[in-house]
Amino acid sequence: MDAASLAIILCEPQLGENIGAVARAMLNCGLTDLRLVAPRDGWPSEPARAAAAGADIVIDGARVFETVEAAIADLNHVYATTARTRDMVKPILSPDKATDRMVAEMARGGRCGVMFGRERSGLTNDQVALADAAVTFPLNPGFTSLNLAQAVLLVGWEWRKRTAEPMADEVTPLISTPATHGDMVHLFQHLEAELETGGFFHPPERRAHTIRNVRNLLTRAKLTEQDVKTLHGVIASLVAIRKRDGA
Amino acid sequence: MDAASLAIILCEPQLGENIGAVARAMLNCGLTDLRLVAPRDGWPSEPARAAAAGADIVIDGARVFETVEAAIADLNHVYATTARTRDMVKPILSPDKATDRMVAEMARGGRCGVMFGRERSGLTNDQVALADAAVTFPLNPGFTSLNLAQAVLLVGWEWRKRTAEPMADEVTPLISTPATHGDMVHLFQHLEAELETGGFFHPPERRAHTIRNVRNLLTRAKLTEQDVKTLHGVIASLVAIRKRDGA
Repeated sequence: MDAASLAIILCEPQLGENIGAVARAMLNCGLTDLRLVAPRDGWPSEPARAAAAGADIVIDGARVFETVEAAIADLNHVYATTARTRDMVKPILSPDKATDRMVAEMARGGRCGVMFGRERSGLTNDQVALADAAVTFPLNPGFTSLNLAQAVLLVGWEWRKRTAEPMADEVTPLISTPATHGDMVHLFQHLEAELETGGFFHPPERRAHTIRNVRNLLTRAKLTEQDVKTLHGVIASLVAIRKRDGA
Repeated sequence: MDAASLAIILCEPQLGENIGAVARAMLNCGLTDLRLVAPRDGWPSEPARAAAAGADIVIDGARVFETVEAAIADLNHVYATTARTRDMVKPILSPDKATDRMVAEMARGGRCGVMFGRERSGLTNDQVALADAAVTFPLNPGFTSLNLAQAVLLVGWEWRKRTAEPMADEVTPLISTPATHGDMVHLFQHLEAELETGGFFHPPERRAHTIRNVRNLLTRAKLTEQDVKTLHGVIASLVAIRKRDGA
């Protein structure tokens, strides 16, 4: 699966800054195939390069087309992003569903692209009519105006989640060796002996319950060997304060 | 489920434009609780309002704090976004996993927030040490530099996907209320003050590192309100032993 083969097509983009921000978002997600249809301020664009913040590979590789038809001529599957429901008989997909379809289509050797419209007005009905399906983002219905680069980022993000090496759901870096349960028991005993001396277990019938609570909370912290040493030191230090002060 | 209750915390943001773009991305996803820690260029900010592109409800409702500790004091669960692996024993979650957790935590009545660092440098180690877990975006490893508003958008997007539609959620019985981070900070301060008195921070140049380690290990335990009370009692009891004995 070549993630770079998903094409991003910007139709009549206006500001170079926005094109640059799109390039940055694309490269964040491992995408590099950028196609520009009739960019208003011309191409190449210095504001675009500056806003790309180092995504030069996307800027340098961008291709310019005079028409949408030319820009999508080599693609097998084209999706149109749209903020509002159109009066058109065409499937409207969620980004999840659309991206699932793209992944399946590309796995079968198809070439896919996603079209994005002009900053304020979006794709025209004629442009949408060229696409196989429309994609709508289920955003806050009271505030759907999505920045161009952010719309591209959401497509790229969903694409990347489906195509990149999956990230582990949860990793805890192992800086130090996890404590053994023997270490933990010594720690419990140290603490409980000092608490006994301090009269902490009062009334006595609560003793077993309190000890369980303290052992549970210390166990939940998943202490390392170093943490256990630190906590022995903490206990000794707290005890030593008054020992030294002789209060 | 009140989607607006997920807090977005920007730590020392520099450009008003970026804060405005964050506000826009938040409102796209139905989020409104924006918290600013020591914004460099001050607040309110006209560039922020302009970049928010109509997300005035977020801009007008934004709250400014002098410290991260104050900004997260009322939250039960805090996540730190980070681009790189840190030398800290703390879970690193994928955005999917992190958002799943937030949804479950909030379904149990917990208040959640996500911290984002300064534009170039990200969160400091001291800021990360206050969080329950880190969140990393599995982007193109060759180009991970994500614009601030885009990082916020990805979190908001994952959040919205899970909350805008009906949720079938797993519920964990709530034995006791999770401690707030305000409770945690008081506990840290109590412990650290006593340790200071006890001369625990030796040599002094290890002080900051040691404090972070202790804060991290206590944060990992996901203490309840009752646990925090218990630990205050434990500290006081340890200190009192020698006070009473006058050794």
